[in-house]
Amino acid sequence: MSDAEVTSEKRTSGRRAKASRGAAQISQLPLRDVTISFAPVELAGPDQVEAIHRTSIRILSELGIRVMSARVMDIFEAAGAIVERAEKTIRIDESLVAEALKTTPPSFTLTSRNPAKRLTIGGRHMAFGLVAGPPNVHDCVNGRRSGNLKDYENFIRLAHHFNAIHIIGNQVTAPQELPANNRHLDTYRANLTLSDLSFHCTAIGGGRAMDGINMMAIARGISVEEMAKDPGVITIISVNSPRLFDDAMAEGLIAMAEHGQPVTITPFTLMGAMTPVTLPAALAQQNAEALFGIVLTQLVKPGAPVMYGAFTSNVDMRSGAPAFGTPENTKANIISGQLARRYRLPYRTSNTNASNTVDLQAAYETGMATWGAVLGGGNMIYHAAGWLEGGLTASYEKLVLDVEILQNMMEILRPIDFSEDELGFDAIASVPTGGHFFGAAHTLARYENAFYRPILSDWTNYGAWEAAGAKDALTRATAVWQQALRDYDEPALDPAIREELDAYVARRKQEIGDGEP
Amino acid sequence: MSDAEVTSEKRTSGRRAKASRGAAQISQLPLRDVTISFAPVELAGPDQVEAIHRTSIRILSELGIRVMSARVMDIFEAAGAIVERAEKTIRIDESLVAEALKTTPPSFTLTSRNPAKRLTIGGRHMAFGLVAGPPNVHDCVNGRRSGNLKDYENFIRLAHHFNAIHIIGNQVTAPQELPANNRHLDTYRANLTLSDLSFHCTAIGGGRAMDGINMMAIARGISVEEMAKDPGVITIISVNSPRLFDDAMAEGLIAMAEHGQPVTITPFTLMGAMTPVTLPAALAQQNAEALFGIVLTQLVKPGAPVMYGAFTSNVDMRSGAPAFGTPENTKANIISGQLARRYRLPYRTSNTNASNTVDLQAAYETGMATWGAVLGGGNMIYHAAGWLEGGLTASYEKLVLDVEILQNMMEILRPIDFSEDELGFDAIASVPTGGHFFGAAHTLARYENAFYRPILSDWTNYGAWEAAGAKDALTRATAVWQQALRDYDEPALDPAIREELDAYVARRKQEIGDGEP
Repeated sequence: MSDAEVTSEKRTSGRRAKASRGAAQISQLPLRDVTISFAPVELAGPDQVEAIHRTSIRILSELGIRVMSARVMDIFEAAGAIVERAEKTIRIDESLVAEALKTTPPSFTLTSRNPAKRLTIGGRHMAFGLVAGPPNVHDCVNGRRSGNLKDYENFIRLAHHFNAIHIIGNQVTAPQELPANNRHLDTYRANLTLSDLSFHCTAIGGGRAMDGINMMAIARGISVEEMAKDPGVITIISVNSPRLFDDAMAEGLIAMAEHGQPVTITPFTLMGAMTPVTLPAALAQQNAEALFGIVLTQLVKPGAPVMYGAFTSNVDMRSGAPAFGTPENTKANIISGQLARRYRLPYRTSNTNASNTVDLQAAYETGMATWGAVLGGGNMIYHAAGWLEGGLTASYEKLVLDVEILQNMMEILRPIDFSEDELGFDAIASVPTGGHFFGAAHTLARYENAFYRPILSDWTNYGAWEAAGAKDALTRATAVWQQALRDYDEPALDPAIREELDAYVARRKQEIGDGEP
Repeated sequence: MSDAEVTSEKRTSGRRAKASRGAAQISQLPLRDVTISFAPVELAGPDQVEAIHRTSIRILSELGIRVMSARVMDIFEAAGAIVERAEKTIRIDESLVAEALKTTPPSFTLTSRNPAKRLTIGGRHMAFGLVAGPPNVHDCVNGRRSGNLKDYENFIRLAHHFNAIHIIGNQVTAPQELPANNRHLDTYRANLTLSDLSFHCTAIGGGRAMDGINMMAIARGISVEEMAKDPGVITIISVNSPRLFDDAMAEGLIAMAEHGQPVTITPFTLMGAMTPVTLPAALAQQNAEALFGIVLTQLVKPGAPVMYGAFTSNVDMRSGAPAFGTPENTKANIISGQLARRYRLPYRTSNTNASNTVDLQAAYETGMATWGAVLGGGNMIYHAAGWLEGGLTASYEKLVLDVEILQNMMEILRPIDFSEDELGFDAIASVPTGGHFFGAAHTLARYENAFYRPILSDWTNYGAWEAAGAKDALTRATAVWQQALRDYDEPALDPAIREELDAYVARRKQEIGDGEP
């Protein structure tokens, strides 16, 4: 991370300049490579993991997957799968899965226009993503409203500002005032000009995927061919569980894989609705669907980077409403990681909640799911900042809450120095029994950075807290995102590149016209 | 747990009777033996655990512990320790520690007046305790106020009512309107009449400890000698870190150990104040202090049940204020479990927070600390329900939040059935691609108990939630504790035993008079 440290240093200098203009800055953690320092939890035993695998193979070979794309049927047929054209069903056996897993890379990198922010996805690495997809936005000052470009841009600024957010997901909120068939261009432009992070291309059809690939290549000043060897964007293919791949998603997957950009296969599996109510069955079905998409990527381009995606939670059986951050969701997050590791694949998971407002429920559900994602050894934790209302709202205050949770987790995962000096015998010897360590030399040498400094928690005593207005954490969260937007420094971008991006967007809007869905 | 299930069944019947009188009941998890189903996390490597141990032994043998009790000095001197009478310092070497660890039991039981609620403390078992010690209480209806017997009794009712709370800690709040030297008698009586749980005796001096032992023996209808073989109460000895044991605590420890009742040795170690700022040093000091107390229990009575206690968190270095639920606290909770397992001792930890109000901070700090306690394999998680404001307030709404967090954790820890039927191949085969499982036979056979039902989370959609008054989780928590107090059934108690308890309290108050501190 020496490059990153340099960049972080630069940014700090930028902030110092801004601070000298008078604003108080938020003290956040520096940019850091997050890795899990301990062995992920094995919630299922080895035999149980094998039972899930075995059931998945039965699903793939006996029941099959329905695919709406003739091209996908062609690809699988050529590979020896059993393709029933009339039913649009493809059945594959274990050997085809095993063959594909021979070429899937165990990890890959994602490089944005700032090479110091290159992410390694796989192994012990962990990246946190901005919330993706909500039609609405909310903050405590202006209330709930439809997604729009102004809020979209603010969320990108916040993602760029907070070092705990590593990647931009698929449209943090849809700018609904813009035409549905070309607004992805405006959002890509915002990602590339307001931040220097990698981002997620919308893979509904090949066109949107290609636009993301082309625009990231422009921003990096490289060709699409060069980017095929050094990927810069990612996408997620959501399976329409149970066992259905739609046409547009298949086209997006193919475009990304052909161009060497990583694809995540994520079955959207809410137990009781899209899968059986039992966790082992939900995981077996999720696993079958994920493996199917993973095989497809390798048939399109052997060695194409691909990630094992999991999004298994449950519904409320009384209402059918989706629930997130539940015990079932947390367990699924952990065991899905065991499955991904069985296949030596990078693992995408998430840490979502079902609360309608930024309240205790939002906090404890997110906390539960985050721990599930971390204990599962998640390599990419998607929707990690800003998700509210079951994914229907991107929330400013929730983003602040989430950055606090993510920073806490980063500190928990940070390796501990056990040198003799840190073991502190001499320091302990220097303080008399019943005394205190505030003034010890060992303390004074370290006190500034000894402990994590929260961005949201308030540790003042009750009297001082009350005297300062008795502000709860939600009220403080509003002040934090407002301050973060003031602190935000737009990353420099070569004017020629900016011009080229603008020209690309204008040209593509013309080309698309009223076409493309 | 067959006995417990019977009892649970009985309680359910009791509730049904009450429900027929018209009140809607809270649907909570049944009484359950909570065990951790996976290997606890190893955050420190084996060499690092040994480095902590080695440093602790140096602290004990080179620096020693200061003890204010002549009796304790006599005991250690007789065992071969180096006792400096003038400095009141005792130094012990590793052999004395090793000798003590030969007789410490790896687990023990705690039996209350309801044998179905017998707790096993040790191994993979996990018990959750009510908050202990706050001088204040708070609820959102009546605000913040000084501790008093009425609130004390309500908290005992809530602890009895919620199956996720297994044990009553030391005075959930001090009833400050009662005389300080005898109010422990009123609180013990409340514990024994309003609940059927085991509880914690105040071990400030031998008198309070003996009162707890005597009263539990009365409630169980057995002699103190019988209870020595089948313990019923527990205490915690808080070390005055760094390296100081006061007289009253030593007397309490001795009284409990002599009578076969379990003792927990918990150094109160806030990094930066009572220990150095570095985590390895804090753990080394905590470990030395805990081992010292553990040796003392075995010198008093070889084989006496004893628990390794940890309460290591940090202070805010800018203000000196204590902080809880921090990354440092979470890490300490995990590594302390590794130390306890190294010594084959049951492990007491806690899951606290520093928030001044029941807000996002209270939720995420508690969530972090709870995961640390669970991943550390905590056998007793103290202060698990109701702790607020750094331990200065017992909160009704926080208790509800905590029960929700604890119930979530109980469900995450519940072993998963991986039988063929649960793997659900036939169920998956029965639903067409793109269909849903709501009506599947596999679903219908299980839907009622398929998923955890929260007591606090609201999973309705935004429109329905808004129409129902847009109540956030804190508002709902108030309704939950109010309902729980309405649902509460006082456990039956033989009138003769009640009379005997009353007589004991009256006699002891007379005896104590203006004496005893």
